[in-house]
Amino acid sequence: MSKTFTLNEIAELVDGTLDGDGEREITMIAPLKAAGENDITYLESRKHLPSLAESKASCVIVDEEVAVPKDLAVIRVRQPGVAWAKVLTAFHPDRRSFQAVSPEAYIGVGVEIAEGVGIGPGAYIGDGASIGARSEIHPGATIGANAVVGEDCRLHSGVHVYHRCRIGDRVTIHSGAVIGADGYGYVQEKTGDEAQPVVHRKVPQVGIVIIEDDVEIGANTTIDRATLDATVIGHGSKVDNLVMVGHNCRTGSHCLVIAQVGLAGTITLGNYVTIAGQAGLAGHIKIGDGAVIGAKSGVISDVEAGKVMIGSPALPGSLARRAYAQIENLPEFRKQIKALNKKVAELEAKLADAD
Amino acid sequence: MSKTFTLNEIAELVDGTLDGDGEREITMIAPLKAAGENDITYLESRKHLPSLAESKASCVIVDEEVAVPKDLAVIRVRQPGVAWAKVLTAFHPDRRSFQAVSPEAYIGVGVEIAEGVGIGPGAYIGDGASIGARSEIHPGATIGANAVVGEDCRLHSGVHVYHRCRIGDRVTIHSGAVIGADGYGYVQEKTGDEAQPVVHRKVPQVGIVIIEDDVEIGANTTIDRATLDATVIGHGSKVDNLVMVGHNCRTGSHCLVIAQVGLAGTITLGNYVTIAGQAGLAGHIKIGDGAVIGAKSGVISDVEAGKVMIGSPALPGSLARRAYAQIENLPEFRKQIKALNKKVAELEAKLADAD
Amino acid sequence: MSKTFTLNEIAELVDGTLDGDGEREITMIAPLKAAGENDITYLESRKHLPSLAESKASCVIVDEEVAVPKDLAVIRVRQPGVAWAKVLTAFHPDRRSFQAVSPEAYIGVGVEIAEGVGIGPGAYIGDGASIGARSEIHPGATIGANAVVGEDCRLHSGVHVYHRCRIGDRVTIHSGAVIGADGYGYVQEKTGDEAQPVVHRKVPQVGIVIIEDDVEIGANTTIDRATLDATVIGHGSKVDNLVMVGHNCRTGSHCLVIAQVGLAGTITLGNYVTIAGQAGLAGHIKIGDGAVIGAKSGVISDVEAGKVMIGSPALPGSLARRAYAQIENLPEFRKQIKALNKKVAELEAKLADAD
Repeated sequence: MSKTFTLNEIAELVDGTLDGDGEREITMIAPLKAAGENDITYLESRKHLPSLAESKASCVIVDEEVAVPKDLAVIRVRQPGVAWAKVLTAFHPDRRSFQAVSPEAYIGVGVEIAEGVGIGPGAYIGDGASIGARSEIHPGATIGANAVVGEDCRLHSGVHVYHRCRIGDRVTIHSGAVIGADGYGYVQEKTGDEAQPVVHRKVPQVGIVIIEDDVEIGANTTIDRATLDATVIGHGSKVDNLVMVGHNCRTGSHCLVIAQVGLAGTITLGNYVTIAGQAGLAGHIKIGDGAVIGAKSGVISDVEAGKVMIGSPALPGSLARRAYAQIENLPEFRKQIKALNKKVAELEAKLADAD
Repeated sequence: MSKTFTLNEIAELVDGTLDGDGEREITMIAPLKAAGENDITYLESRKHLPSLAESKASCVIVDEEVAVPKDLAVIRVRQPGVAWAKVLTAFHPDRRSFQAVSPEAYIGVGVEIAEGVGIGPGAYIGDGASIGARSEIHPGATIGANAVVGEDCRLHSGVHVYHRCRIGDRVTIHSGAVIGADGYGYVQEKTGDEAQPVVHRKVPQVGIVIIEDDVEIGANTTIDRATLDATVIGHGSKVDNLVMVGHNCRTGSHCLVIAQVGLAGTITLGNYVTIAGQAGLAGHIKIGDGAVIGAKSGVISDVEAGKVMIGSPALPGSLARRAYAQIENLPEFRKQIKALNKKVAELEAKLADAD
Repeated sequence: MSKTFTLNEIAELVDGTLDGDGEREITMIAPLKAAGENDITYLESRKHLPSLAESKASCVIVDEEVAVPKDLAVIRVRQPGVAWAKVLTAFHPDRRSFQAVSPEAYIGVGVEIAEGVGIGPGAYIGDGASIGARSEIHPGATIGANAVVGEDCRLHSGVHVYHRCRIGDRVTIHSGAVIGADGYGYVQEKTGDEAQPVVHRKVPQVGIVIIEDDVEIGANTTIDRATLDATVIGHGSKVDNLVMVGHNCRTGSHCLVIAQVGLAGTITLGNYVTIAGQAGLAGHIKIGDGAVIGAKSGVISDVEAGKVMIGSPALPGSLARRAYAQIENLPEFRKQIKALNKKVAELEAKLADAD
């Protein structure tokens, strides 16, 4: 964080319009409430406007319309979040950890290593694997035989890529993620043995995993190899930590799969699908483009494009909100139904008497 | 996949009856829809019969009764899924990655290594551990002091087995699984200190984990060591990825525990229990033989043998299906109860007038 | 377990009152039902009193009031669980695995290693990191550049601590836990390209993780680094296995976070908060001191200090118990509402006739 930037430089970087002193030096980035003298900050949402009024920051990045306190320098842009990400990157440029192949890395036979690759000590590259230009493999990561890692990738410590899996370009995989372990596939074999009438015979999982370009995979996520062909994480998708992607799943492009989601086998996600944390999807279903699955939802059938599904069992979004909100009223429902039964019985008795 | 087989050879392998040209060469296996010339495929379920009618495969494996298009060679067997697993294995014979102990593996003092063991570079075997015949320990896996691994096991990269744990024969453990970390055991100790009246004092976890024969453990699953005796995964059980098995749990034989399931401490599963994905079981309960726990279920009390429990809170299967299906009707229930209250009040008023 | 203790020694160790032969030698600790001759055991709860009556143990640790069979030696203490933990520790003293820095560990440039540190073969310590006195880093663990590990810590095999993260004193981290991977932060950037109108641009995660003193972190748990400042696990907190702690979360002191819990980003937990297994908390909420979140609960808004919240959606504890218990009655509710509608319609018709 030794770099400093003038407001002119920052405005140019984010393609924004500066209202303030362009020569002012900015030394730090900071969240709105913490920002002080010489800091630049950013208005994430209009609900933080009150904090903005009290901010001691030197400059704030906002959209093109919001009103800001007049003493505050301001950079206006169309997409403040995008501008903020660019400023963060400028102040914290991405530094590579490993620029070359460590003599203490284990490199198999027939491995292809392109120029600029960095491999840390103790990393293992299996026979016949290939690592694309400028990619980094951190200490303790393992790449199975004949696996392919593209260009400009970063595989953090303890990532395990099984044999023959294929990682695209500009893919980041965080520590402990496992790419290409066997899918959970067994057939129930009758044995004729009364003591154990059935055993679970393993179905060999001979397919692979394909991670397309520009994907990021979170820590300790597991993506299982396909039975026959490929489990695919589509271009530009972002998968959070501790996610389970079962064998034969295929996500489209630019999907967001949040932490601890479970995708059972052979699920197809369209493009721009969002699946919120801890949701679970049953096997063999299709989720259409742009659909959103709420946190903790349980989905057991196809979801049409653009639909929002929430809850377990999952219901369409607006219905789900109304329906699940009634659970707290169930004791009252019970009481009222009981009372109604009594009253109606009394009415019936009275009317019978009246006959 | 350079091997080819004649249909006669395949029929013999699966103990099936061929109807077709026994000398026909098969070069590939493929899923039903993708299968083409020289491929063998398999009818997984009768609902795929329409796809079978259009299949370009050279041969299909089916059960003894289903009717198939007359141009298609067919191998009939009693258990098509089992036959298919055998064919897959024949076309993709399991190849060992490591045939010997790498000079770059770290082998402790007093380690016993049986014949045919393969240990990859960078794997660590603690003092006094023993590795049974023909087992493989992949790069980056660690075996704690005095742990025992049986014969014909495969421990993938980044598997961590803690000290003194015992792995049976023919056990496969996928990357990142952790066998024998400390169970989550603390006692709430009163301190007499107002600032922090209670601290969580660790209860030493001095037991072990026992994985019996023929078990498979998925990637990044964690099985904690017992407080005093042993956490046990029973013979032939298959545990999927990212499962949590708490301390002192004991599963019977041939259980299926699907991804992201959580078993709290001291749970006993009978034989042939199935627990579907993301289900959670509270501590100190017993699940009887052959019981099935549905996906995402929350189970807090004992389940009898053979029972199906679904939902959170878990209910018996058929009731659960009917009951949870009503959640979407709750807004309507509310409306109708309100309307009924109004109508009954009106009726009561009318009758009172009539008196 | 070669050590033996006399009952006098044990009574002194736990600051308890012995009623029995103080010279009696105890060779083993055992659970109540399994305890035999020469074993000491402990009464965890009064519901196990019947087992105590049949126990063959030589001595039992109990509280100051419970009545025990007269033949059994007894040690009375105020906090039997605490005494039991002390006895367990005495019989199974904690043994270090690594007393020194292995010549086969990978030590970066400018690493500070205090006295008594043990680092296993194949462990990696990045440039500029520091390891405090008597801490142990097991084989296959990796410590990123400029990270700080305090004194008397134990980082098990395959723990990955990213750059610049800070671990306090007396912290234990179990295998496969990942401390400091990037938080899940992206901004949706409009591209103007119809084929992919939006891409998820990464927001650099330039903060760190701080683990305070006396924390224990379970196997395969992931704690993401903050976007700007720090994700914090507070003093004395205990985090179980496979937990996800999102970026910018801060837990207070002495929190208990059970297995498979998911904390989305920017959550604040007070002190002494308990979050039971598989619960999920939405981002940007606050949980007050001493609050308890039930297993599998879904919490989307602030929880006041001391409150118990259960269910998904989460409701206050006693309401939750009554409300969720009604789900099994929903088919009956439906039937009765239908019957009520019919009866009321009939009554209305009768009364209309009567008019």
